Amino acid sequence: MLLIADNLQITKESVQKALAQRDAKTIRNLVGRCEESGADAIDINTGPLGKNAEDKMKFFVDAVQEVTELPIVIDTANPVAIEAGLKCAKNRAIINGFSLEPKKIEKILPLAKTFDTDIMGYLLTKEGQVPKTATQRLTIASEIHSKIIEEDISEERLIIDPVLVPLIWDDGKNQDFELLGVIRLLPDVLGFEVKTVVGLSNLSAGAPASLKKNIIENSYLSMLAASGLSMVLLNIFNTETVKTAKAIEELLNPGIFSWEVSQ
Amino acid sequence: MLLIADNLQITKESVQKALAQRDAKTIRNLVGRCEESGADAIDINTGPLGKNAEDKMKFFVDAVQEVTELPIVIDTANPVAIEAGLKCAKNRAIINGFSLEPKKIEKILPLAKTFDTDIMGYLLTKEGQVPKTATQRLTIASEIHSKIIEEDISEERLIIDPVLVPLIWDDGKNQDFELLGVIRLLPDVLGFEVKTVVGLSNLSAGAPASLKKNIIENSYLSMLAASGLSMVLLNIFNTETVKTAKAIEELLNPGIFSWEVSQ
Repeated sequence: MLLIADNLQITKESVQKALAQRDAKTIRNLVGRCEESGADAIDINTGPLGKNAEDKMKFFVDAVQEVTELPIVIDTANPVAIEAGLKCAKNRAIINGFSLEPKKIEKILPLAKTFDTDIMGYLLTKEGQVPKTATQRLTIASEIHSKIIEEDISEERLIIDPVLVPLIWDDGKNQDFELLGVIRLLPDVLGFEVKTVVGLSNLSAGAPASLKKNIIENSYLSMLAASGLSMVLLNIFNTETVKTAKAIEELLNPGIFSWEVSQ
Repeated sequence: MLLIADNLQITKESVQKALAQRDAKTIRNLVGRCEESGADAIDINTGPLGKNAEDKMKFFVDAVQEVTELPIVIDTANPVAIEAGLKCAKNRAIINGFSLEPKKIEKILPLAKTFDTDIMGYLLTKEGQVPKTATQRLTIASEIHSKIIEEDISEERLIIDPVLVPLIWDDGKNQDFELLGVIRLLPDVLGFEVKTVVGLSNLSAGAPASLKKNIIENSYLSMLAASGLSMVLLNIFNTETVKTAKAIEELLNPGIFSWEVSQ
């Protein structure tokens, strides 16, 4: 299971300030710490970026690439910003992401073909809504797969995000339990070993600082991994979760187990 | 997921001494602490008991029942001791357990009918060996189910232990990963909602005191629970594992989630 750091987010004041001042050093420091903390990839969550989106995205991608060779995940709904990011990407890049919403099929999906990159596809309805049942999610996954084929993109490029919902939603626990089955069934339903990703922080969206946040997240992450999850977006500075992720790797990877603590 | 305390074990010197001196107070104290720590049932692991097995088993069962009304799990391979335990059981009792070994089919299985109790059935070969593959385990489960039917015992009485193996076995990780699928598939294979149990401490058998023992156990317990495990034998004094078990319950039980810490 690959760990994608979700720490570079425009919602953080320090990141907004770094962008406004074109202060690459702050971004480099943040990303360097992400890599040291165990990140396998860096999500660059810029938001829509507004005016001068291309220039702003270039600032972020350049700053990240100055300090790491890890894959970058271009995380915005603005196709102009995505294209700008892909143009200056030297590291392996992943588009995050598209869904069945017509404007995303039209504007974002073709970029995966043009730039020959992986792309995350969200299991959302055409209206951008979260589906309520596992069956709806699996149906949407088939439709997303069809769109990939129609665009003549290799199916191996697709990474499905089945959309983890906050536990405190009325049917949150039920949906997130069903999600485990969706992740397990997707390869059979689509007929190939499709990769999957979720944003773990969604689980505790709306949570107060809670003693049990870590334990719930770690427990659910273990369930996701056993269901076959390929990659996870998470706060890479949460050392407890990263330790759990490493333990999960040891449990699920082939080979002989050792109780010695590896580095 | 029910938590069965595995803390009352004849392998412990304090328990051996309590038995030799018929010191019920030590047993009562131990079991009282198990209940306070969150146990839903008490495993009474007496070993074969040798001479005066009936009297010795009666000592344990009486001592436990003096302090708790929790179900008791009679855990010995000696059918004479099991029968003695069941005779003095006032609490709900579970036999732990039988397998396809002919002497167990002949001597232990009928006790579940005579005393109308639940019984744990181990997925071991007729020779008492641990099967190597998930397919072998599922085949043995069907054979165990047939034996239950042949003995005219209600299938709801059966609790299957698929036999968790130590991670450090050569193929330990692989077997324990396959175990998750076995637990998930058993209800479909047997055609009813069969209950399942594992002994969690087997996972780390042979482990040194290790920083990662808790995190590995908690992660794997989450995976077992998501696969549908009904009950687990564990060290109920390990507060970290019990906290994880409580978090798992909150994740998997129906109803609205709350981030508040419940008592």
